[in-house]
Amino acid sequence: MSKKVAVYRREHFNAAHRLYNPQWDDATNDAVFGKCNNPNFHGHNYELEVKVSGIPDVQTGYVMDMKLLSDLIKEHVLEVFDHRNLNKDVSYFEKLNPTAENIAVVIYEILRKQLHKKFDLQVRLYETPRNFVEYPAS
Amino acid sequence: MSKKVAVYRREHFNAAHRLYNPQWDDATNDAVFGKCNNPNFHGHNYELEVKVSGIPDVQTGYVMDMKLLSDLIKEHVLEVFDHRNLNKDVSYFEKLNPTAENIAVVIYEILRKQLHKKFDLQVRLYETPRNFVEYPAS
Amino acid sequence: MSKKVAVYRREHFNAAHRLYNPQWDDATNDAVFGKCNNPNFHGHNYELEVKVSGIPDVQTGYVMDMKLLSDLIKEHVLEVFDHRNLNKDVSYFEKLNPTAENIAVVIYEILRKQLHKKFDLQVRLYETPRNFVEYPAS
Amino acid sequence: MSKKVAVYRREHFNAAHRLYNPQWDDATNDAVFGKCNNPNFHGHNYELEVKVSGIPDVQTGYVMDMKLLSDLIKEHVLEVFDHRNLNKDVSYFEKLNPTAENIAVVIYEILRKQLHKKFDLQVRLYETPRNFVEYPAS
Amino acid sequence: MSKKVAVYRREHFNAAHRLYNPQWDDATNDAVFGKCNNPNFHGHNYELEVKVSGIPDVQTGYVMDMKLLSDLIKEHVLEVFDHRNLNKDVSYFEKLNPTAENIAVVIYEILRKQLHKKFDLQVRLYETPRNFVEYPAS
Amino acid sequence: MSKKVAVYRREHFNAAHRLYNPQWDDATNDAVFGKCNNPNFHGHNYELEVKVSGIPDVQTGYVMDMKLLSDLIKEHVLEVFDHRNLNKDVSYFEKLNPTAENIAVVIYEILRKQLHKKFDLQVRLYETPRNFVEYPAS
Repeated sequence: MSKKVAVYRREHFNAAHRLYNPQWDDATNDAVFGKCNNPNFHGHNYELEVKVSGIPDVQTGYVMDMKLLSDLIKEHVLEVFDHRNLNKDVSYFEKLNPTAENIAVVIYEILRKQLHKKFDLQVRLYETPRNFVEYPAS
Repeated sequence: MSKKVAVYRREHFNAAHRLYNPQWDDATNDAVFGKCNNPNFHGHNYELEVKVSGIPDVQTGYVMDMKLLSDLIKEHVLEVFDHRNLNKDVSYFEKLNPTAENIAVVIYEILRKQLHKKFDLQVRLYETPRNFVEYPAS
Repeated sequence: MSKKVAVYRREHFNAAHRLYNPQWDDATNDAVFGKCNNPNFHGHNYELEVKVSGIPDVQTGYVMDMKLLSDLIKEHVLEVFDHRNLNKDVSYFEKLNPTAENIAVVIYEILRKQLHKKFDLQVRLYETPRNFVEYPAS
Repeated sequence: MSKKVAVYRREHFNAAHRLYNPQWDDATNDAVFGKCNNPNFHGHNYELEVKVSGIPDVQTGYVMDMKLLSDLIKEHVLEVFDHRNLNKDVSYFEKLNPTAENIAVVIYEILRKQLHKKFDLQVRLYETPRNFVEYPAS
Repeated sequence: MSKKVAVYRREHFNAAHRLYNPQWDDATNDAVFGKCNNPNFHGHNYELEVKVSGIPDVQTGYVMDMKLLSDLIKEHVLEVFDHRNLNKDVSYFEKLNPTAENIAVVIYEILRKQLHKKFDLQVRLYETPRNFVEYPAS
Repeated sequence: MSKKVAVYRREHFNAAHRLYNPQWDDATNDAVFGKCNNPNFHGHNYELEVKVSGIPDVQTGYVMDMKLLSDLIKEHVLEVFDHRNLNKDVSYFEKLNPTAENIAVVIYEILRKQLHKKFDLQVRLYETPRNFVEYPAS
């Protein structure tokens, strides 16, 4: 059995987006993405749940300081995504469709670079309370 | 004491919006609306709570059929607001800033016309789980 | 402005029920109550929210002891409703359709008798997270 | 590390049920199942969470279309379970006790047949906000 | 009908407290306050919901800027209450029992002084998800 | 694929605590633990989620009786932790810093001894809705 403990931190951001594939014509985009393809955009309150697993430090009893984890998420994710148009304002999605799946993978890649390799990382993203994704899938 | 019972129905919709006053210059809009003034829009999952008060019908035990109330909201509100850009796609906000306060008043006015005058009506709108509004204020 | 403080206590119970009017034929019951008229019953997790308003006691700082309020609800409501078939096991609904509206009024009447008249009482009942009722309507 | 992303869809249904083993006498059933053995049934609002894991499609950015997943659940699960008496109306439970564990396994088996084998599947079922089950256990 | 719109802002703080009346002996305090009278304190995550009602401003569409309301609560309430021992660290409770009722009245009095008299104010405080209070009682 | 089903039971308790390392001086404790190091303590509503995985019993359809699991948690965890000061009243933390990580490990060890070895066990502890931990990390 793993001796690792996982710590989770939840943050949120609001953003506009539109789902479409620029290589397809309008009819195909409408057929695949439906009302999510509104060219004027729609939006969501995204809830972001970041999971970091490791062995608690003997001196502090912390896997890592949650305040530090929260600050990392704020600096590297919320500053870039919050109150933005994902398609137009966020460079990661210049050529990538901002589905929940792709947003989660992007956030994982961003945070992976900020965390010591001794930690395991997983990202869960709620697009609505009824639709959410997780990467990597457990 | 009132013999009225209130029934509540919750629905939700997703939308993009931007807060600004077109009569003001950019600096004033930024000072007042901050990042909510992003010209490329941001968005929310709006939770809408509609309260209808009246005397339950003796035959049915219903104030009004919740299914009917849900259908009214879907037809007259969600069809117009869901997956839209409030500023660009929804005529009510052509000249009205789509703050949570104004959206709630607009939804109240829409639904008031659909309900028999014997019913009292109140609308609550959650823009985020931590920011919400109610009209008319109780 | 009222100097009253309201205290709220939430409890829950699970029950089966069926909506129908025995004076109507099957076709009418189906037309009015739809799948809620399943003769084999369906069921819900009911969340019950009881609000008691009064002036806090100077000695205790309590409007009333929440533990006592919880015990009153358990003894007089949950013992009668929880894990029951409302139509068949609960005498209040022998001749009364167990709609959320009627259940809330019945619970109000039960608890009103248990509370000193100096207290105001209001009952809110969640049949689902999206359908709920309140009596008396505020 | 897996390159799979998990997508989750939440749906809900209401149902009546009773827990008992027909091969046992009443005293044994009461001892084991307590008030869940009420012969007149009780009921729940079941929250169903379906997890599908796979590699996102490069063209769409979707693991699978959430709308399609929602439609599959509605057609194959909610149509059969919602507003029903699990013991009397749902053939899967003719000889199977409708515990949360068994309901989750049944729903897993139903949905497994509807999904391409390239996808992993897991089902979580909330019987109440405080009691829930998951199959297969992660 | 009021033309007022209510805006709500939710904040939270964590605190330790103990319920007891220093004019009573230990036996009486134990009888009235039970385990809430632990002399070593216990604690809660308090959720604070502040409601401000008024006429939306024609220029902004705001009753008041939620950001400003949030800042007022942070400065005047959270700075004083968060991560504190209410009995020992917060002067308001030197001679006042920190029941949820009394905490809500204190927070109301604090915020009332910070808000223009044209606004109505109400405070709701969740001590747990199942126990909460409201002042003034609506 | 595992044939195991996981059952989850949620319970809650309230407690006061303080984070610090007695081997460090005050300045170091303040630097590491910030306001969590308040010597007068602060507190939380802890939500505890216990996951037990196993093969459902053929006779009952239960992995294990949720009522029994709830009783075990109440007797061995809540009786010891609820409405207590973790640092001063709970012997497990005499020499162990009561971080969420350490509390979760302690609760795991307590419950592991109460459960048959055929069951897998995992503990999740919510210190706030935005900060939570899991042991062992999945």
